[in-house]
This record gives sequence, C-alpha cells and structure tokens, in this order.
Amino acid sequence: MKDLFNNTVCAISSPPGVGAISVIRLTGEKSHQILTNIISSKSKYENLKAGKLLFTKILADGNILDEVLLVKFDAPNSFTGENMLEIYCHGSEFIQQEILHLLVKNGANIALPGEFTKRAFINGKMDLSQSEAVADIISSNSSESHRLAINQLKGGISNEIALLREKMIELISLMELELDFSEEDVEFADRSRLLQIIQEIKTKINLLIESFKYGNAVKNGVPVAIVGKPNTGKSTLLNTLLKEDRAIVSDIPGTTRDSIEEEIFIDGIKFRFIDTAGLRESKDKIEEIGVKRSLEKINLSQVILLIIEANSSEKEIDTIIRQVDKEINSSQKLILVFNKIDLLNKENLDLKYNYESIKISAKHNKNIDLLHNSLSSYVKSLKTGIGDVILTNARHIEVLHKIDLALDRAIEGLNMQLSSDLVSQDLREAMHYLGEITGQVSNEEVLGAIFSKFCIGK
Amino acid sequence: MKDLFNNTVCAISSPPGVGAISVIRLTGEKSHQILTNIISSKSKYENLKAGKLLFTKILADGNILDEVLLVKFDAPNSFTGENMLEIYCHGSEFIQQEILHLLVKNGANIALPGEFTKRAFINGKMDLSQSEAVADIISSNSSESHRLAINQLKGGISNEIALLREKMIELISLMELELDFSEEDVEFADRSRLLQIIQEIKTKINLLIESFKYGNAVKNGVPVAIVGKPNTGKSTLLNTLLKEDRAIVSDIPGTTRDSIEEEIFIDGIKFRFIDTAGLRESKDKIEEIGVKRSLEKINLSQVILLIIEANSSEKEIDTIIRQVDKEINSSQKLILVFNKIDLLNKENLDLKYNYESIKISAKHNKNIDLLHNSLSSYVKSLKTGIGDVILTNARHIEVLHKIDLALDRAIEGLNMQLSSDLVSQDLREAMHYLGEITGQVSNEEVLGAIFSKFCIGK
Repeated sequence: MKDLFNNTVCAISSPPGVGAISVIRLTGEKSHQILTNIISSKSKYENLKAGKLLFTKILADGNILDEVLLVKFDAPNSFTGENMLEIYCHGSEFIQQEILHLLVKNGANIALPGEFTKRAFINGKMDLSQSEAVADIISSNSSESHRLAINQLKGGISNEIALLREKMIELISLMELELDFSEEDVEFADRSRLLQIIQEIKTKINLLIESFKYGNAVKNGVPVAIVGKPNTGKSTLLNTLLKEDRAIVSDIPGTTRDSIEEEIFIDGIKFRFIDTAGLRESKDKIEEIGVKRSLEKINLSQVILLIIEANSSEKEIDTIIRQVDKEINSSQKLILVFNKIDLLNKENLDLKYNYESIKISAKHNKNIDLLHNSLSSYVKSLKTGIGDVILTNARHIEVLHKIDLALDRAIEGLNMQLSSDLVSQDLREAMHYLGEITGQVSNEEVLGAIFSKFCIGK
Repeated sequence: MKDLFNNTVCAISSPPGVGAISVIRLTGEKSHQILTNIISSKSKYENLKAGKLLFTKILADGNILDEVLLVKFDAPNSFTGENMLEIYCHGSEFIQQEILHLLVKNGANIALPGEFTKRAFINGKMDLSQSEAVADIISSNSSESHRLAINQLKGGISNEIALLREKMIELISLMELELDFSEEDVEFADRSRLLQIIQEIKTKINLLIESFKYGNAVKNGVPVAIVGKPNTGKSTLLNTLLKEDRAIVSDIPGTTRDSIEEEIFIDGIKFRFIDTAGLRESKDKIEEIGVKRSLEKINLSQVILLIIEANSSEKEIDTIIRQVDKEINSSQKLILVFNKIDLLNKENLDLKYNYESIKISAKHNKNIDLLHNSLSSYVKSLKTGIGDVILTNARHIEVLHKIDLALDRAIEGLNMQLSSDLVSQDLREAMHYLGEITGQVSNEEVLGAIFSKFCIGK
C-alpha cells in the first residue's frame, strides 16, 4: 500500500485559532525539497541534522512572512516513517494560512484528517489499534480515559492480540496436521485438545469483550439519571455536584453538552448527569404520559440516582421504588439517595431496601463524598479484562464478536465430526478477523472510516 | 529590573483547544531542573545540546502521561534570554492541563499574558516597539497589517527612533555646550542652528504621526458606510462584495463582528463594511429622526459609499448628495456609486460631480473591480511616513505628540531668549519620551498595560 502515498502533504497540527505558537507539519518524499523553496537559509537546511532546530525566515515573494523555528526528520526515522518536518511559527491565522498556501504552491497537498497517523500505520511505524489510540489520546478528557488510551498506544492491546494470534496459529497447525493425515484414516485423536484450545481463546476473547463495559464507560462517560418526585432536591443535588467540580468542568472549554446534561469528573472518571422532570404519582391518563417520558430517560442511563425525601412514609418510598424498578434492567445500577436528612423527623431511617442506599443533604453538602464513592466504586466494579488490557473501541468489540461466532462454528463443526478442512475454514476466518484489530488485515474502507475521525494535522 | 524574574514560569503557547500537537513553554533559571523531575530520560536531558530535539516520556506519579518531543535552550541564547524549553505534546486538553500541573507542582508558576515577550524585553533581547510587534504579528489578519508588524519586529521603528535619538543628543550637547559657557557671557550664536535641528526633528516626528492614518487603517480595518435611499441596492452590493471574498472571511473563524458589520479583504487590506438603513427624504419630523440616525453612522466611517440609482433624476441626485455631504468632514472619503447601470434608460450618465464616481451593477457583478480599486487606492493614498516606517500603535502616537509639544516649548524658549538650562529641560523631556517608544525608559505601569494585552504563552 506504500505507493498510495507518493504525494507530500501538510497541515496545521496545533489547535485551530490564534495563539503564540502554531505547529505546521509536512510529510512525504518531497518535504525537504518543498521547504527549501520557501525559506531563507536553504543551504543551512540542506546540511541540517535531523532533530536539530533551525531558526530561519519564511519568504513569500521575497518578503519575510515570518521568523520560525523548524525541525527536520529523515525517513524512516520520523513519526510517519517518511521525510518530515515541523515548523513552529507565530500563531496568527494569517501566518498559518499563508504558510500552508506557500507549501501548496510549491507542490504539497493539504493533508486529510488523520493522514499523518495513517501514513505511520501504512509505513509500519505502529499497528492499527495503536493508531486508534493516538486519536483517543487527543480526545480523552479524563485521567482514566487518558490512561487507557496511553496503554493502548504502548501496545497493551496489540500484545494481547499477538498472544491470541499465537494460540490461533497453534490451533490451525494442529488442525492442518490432522488434515494431512486425514486420507490415511487417522483417528481424530486431537479433537478434545483442539476444543480445549478454542475454549481458551474464547475465554480470553470474552474477557476482552467484557472489558468494554468499563472501557466504554471510561471513554464516553457514565450516564447517570437523577430521578425522583418533584421537589425532592434533584436540582440542588446537581448544583451541589457541579459546584464541587465546576473548576474542572470549566477547565475544558468547548465540551459539548446539551441543556439537560452536565459532566462531572469523579476519581478521574467522567459522569454525565441527566436531570429529569419530577416523577408524579397520578391516575390521570395524560399526566401518566408525562411521567412515562421521564422514566424513558432512565433507559439512556447506566446509573439511576433515585432521590427520595428522607421524611417520606414507607408506603411512599415503596411506591416510588417499585415505579422506577419496573423501568430498569439488570445491567443498570439503581442507587437510592435519601435527601434532606437534616430535616429528618423520624428517629431513624431504616435502609432495608434491596438497593444501595445513601443518606445525604444536598443543600448542606452532607455525605456527597459518599455518593462520589458509590459512583466511583460502581464504575470500578465494572473493571474486568486481561491484566490491564481494557478495550474502549467499539470497532474492536465488533471484530471480537465475529471471532467468537467463528469459533462457535468451529466448535460445532468439531462436535459434529465435520471434516478438518471445513473446521479449518472457520478457524482461518477467526484468524483473519484477529488481524483486523491490529491492521495486519485491512482495506481502504475500514482505514477510511477509522482515520476520517481523526483531527487535522495528526 | 532583571531580579523581577527570579521565578520560572510556564504556559500553553499553542492556540487553546484540542489539536494534534500542543506547545508548552517554560522559561526561567530553574527550567531545566524542573523538567528533569517530570521526564523519563533525565540524564539524556542533562546532556542534551541546546536546539536539539529529545523524544521522551512525561511521567506523572510514575505513570506515562504522554510521549513528547522537547527542546532545550540555554541562557542567554533563547527567546527570553533565560534558560528555556519547549514541549511538543499531544494536543488533548487533559494532557496540556496535566503537564502544566506537573510543572507547577515542581516549582514553576503559570506565566502571565505576554510574560515571555516581557522577559525578552527586560533581558534586552528586543526593544519595546519590537515586543509590541510580536503581539501585532499574532493578531494581524491581513497581509498589509502583517507586513507592517513584521517590519516593526525587524526594527523598522526602532531604527528611526535611534536616528531621532542621535539628533536629540546632538541638539542637547550643543545646548549644554552653550550652558557651559553661559557664565562667561558667550553669544547665543548657535541658536538658529538649534532651531533648525529642532525643526528637522519635528518634521520627522510629524511624518511618523501622519503615518498612523495609514497604519491605523491597515491595522484595525477601514470602516466603510454603505448609505443611500432604500432599494438602491445597498444590500445587494454588500452581498456581491461578500460573495467575492467569503472564502477569506470564512478562513478566519471567530472574527468578532457585530450584526451590521462585515469584513472584506481587498488587496491585503481589511475593510469593515457597515450597512445602514435607507435614507429617505421626508418633511415628517419623526421620519427625519430615523434618517438622522442613519446619517450618524456615517460619522463612524472613514469611507462613505453613497449608493444612487443610476436612473435617478438630476434633482434627486443633487438632493441626496447634498444631504450626505453635510454629514461628512474633510478627513472622510465620499464615493458616489451609481448602481443598476444595466437598467439605465438615459443615453448617458454624466458624472459631473465633485466626488469620485463609479458606475456599477451590484446585481450583475459589473464594475465591482472598479470599486475594489477605488477603495484600495484610497487607503494607499493615505500612506505617508519615513521610508517604509508606518506607525500602527496608538501608544507611540501619544508619545510622539508629547515629544512634539516639548519641542514646541523648546522653540518658544529659544525664541524668547530663555536661558539654556530652561530650554535644555524641554529637550531632555522630549528625549525622555523618545525612550518610552523603544523602552529605554519604562515603568511597571506602562509595561503592565502593554503586555497584559498579549496572549498567554507569548
């Protein structure tokens, strides 16, 4: 696929907008040649050692456009594996655009999103799951999602896939050994051993699939619905939660959120709190629909905080719990939050319910740390996987499911005493899919889908 | 003033937000020491040559936060003149913030806006007008404003001020020579020579002040009011103008503009078109107020495009011209734009008016280039100055006015045969002000005002 990239491309790699310094990157065979056309110190650049900064001027029609620092990398010792360079220029929009124009005028093309990383992949500098980690690192906004992305970049997933690959090769070679002797009517003596290996692989694959539950929660944030009857203090709780973390929220400008969602980081994990309208008990048909719509929001959530006034009667409490309980499934976590404990006029609030329960005062910021702990522990309880390998990428999960199905077919074939070549086909299919994760097997369509989600300049 | 900066400061220098690569800068004596605390290749960094890139890992509590490139500069060979370094990290918000936190935890402070350039000034790496040019370069968004800023950074203004300074020194030494001999009742033989030199200086200073007219237009854009009766095609013209340049306008996201202003770049100069409500002739008192308000917008503009339907009667044309003419002053430029020439049913449109006149069809995009030329020529006609030295900074103009007044007092003193020491005082004051432009004379208040307008990280 190397000859796909016979052009040289450039892009602004720093965030868009105005700043003190911007970074412009150029990669491709002609990078150095194009650059010498636009700078004042041509011979200095030609003799410049890789990785050494050069202070020079960018010239446009003989006039100084900017004074810049730049650095040169020679193939294959660069991020992309090609001749490459980075320009550190003044961060005005004008200068950034003009330098791009100059590069294009001298033969470069504008890079597509992710094209630098795609070239790094194609040129064997990193595998596909590591390339995907680059995008994840850039978009990660919590310490845990960042940690998982770094782990993936360092090859955590690649290593695990390599181990599975070894097992698959062992399996297939055993299978083909049988194939070689099949015409001689050799006993199928190895089949139980084969089944055992397939089961081992399936177990690992299912652990990886399972790890996505945690990985996805960490990468995309955990949706938490705050539900309860009106005036139980849902909004007060949201404000109290937000106030504690507003600094972090405001540290990240441009975080997209709709009007009913607020993001809060607890223990390095992002939670997306969804405020809902108050639930009312009503026999009125029309009002029931309103309540229904609120309850539907519960479906979008992974955790449901049911806010209950501590002073409610046992009957009231039972009713609201039953109402919410109907709406949740086994993969969701319901936490009962008894609010307004400062106003409690009962001797004791007996927490005899089947759900985790916390007593708080949202208004007086009491026991909010318990709620934090509870949310954080819940997410940590999702953590499974092989060692510290946690999958965060839906594409990987999709591929792993396909492998799992192919292996099921192989098991079925073995059990049905199908001929070795038929079973072998399923195993080879599983092996093929395995290659899709790390990119040993890939096609333009898959790569296009992956890299188009990257930001420009990466 | 050097000891003002005994701390080490850091900032994100690339534009705010998420991108492929971000730049973080650290300056101050302890830069290298602080950095070695947070990277994996400590000894490599210690032995790293200045200006050479190092690929290393940033560690937070023993975990890899990011893999980065970084470069080291040793005092005094750096932008700030201090020990300095730049980190090129992945451009996630999270990584950027965490690296800053790590640097701060290890003893750095967060840099104030412009603090890097301020340190460069204090450490004698550039003078004050050059420092100001750095901010201008970053904020410039047209080729001409960019060119003027680059010229200023290259010392264009500094050189001119240095020449004036020489003249002033000559002047003062002549004056003090007279002073030395004054007790011996020496004749005031040199006074005409003194007056001549003062006049020479004043001429230069007034040329510099005069250059601000062009410099300011280029730096801040030229406000152009589009006025005329209703339905003469004002909005069509604005759309036609915008369409031609919309690509450039959209190249610059985040350009602040209010609802009635649109920016268009012509020949590298920014024009700010201000659409106004149609002018109506009316004897009705209330309607007259409405017209008055439209006319008031003319006051905000440097150029007034009066749009007139080509088919209007001579009387109508005379009336509207007279109406607008009343509102403009001698420093404003009025251009008569006869629109809808495609519908012209007169044999000929006689352009006998005292103002520059252009015949166009906004709808059919006819002669819009003539309008472009006319606007561009007008701005170029403002261009005065000494050689290519154009002032764009209101602070410099304020200081030059003070110098001019001090010189006037000196002239008056000489003419009134005041004693040398009194005249000398005025000259020394003028000399003092001269130093304020390049920063030989400065105080924390002035510097604070200048550098607080810089962006972070510069």
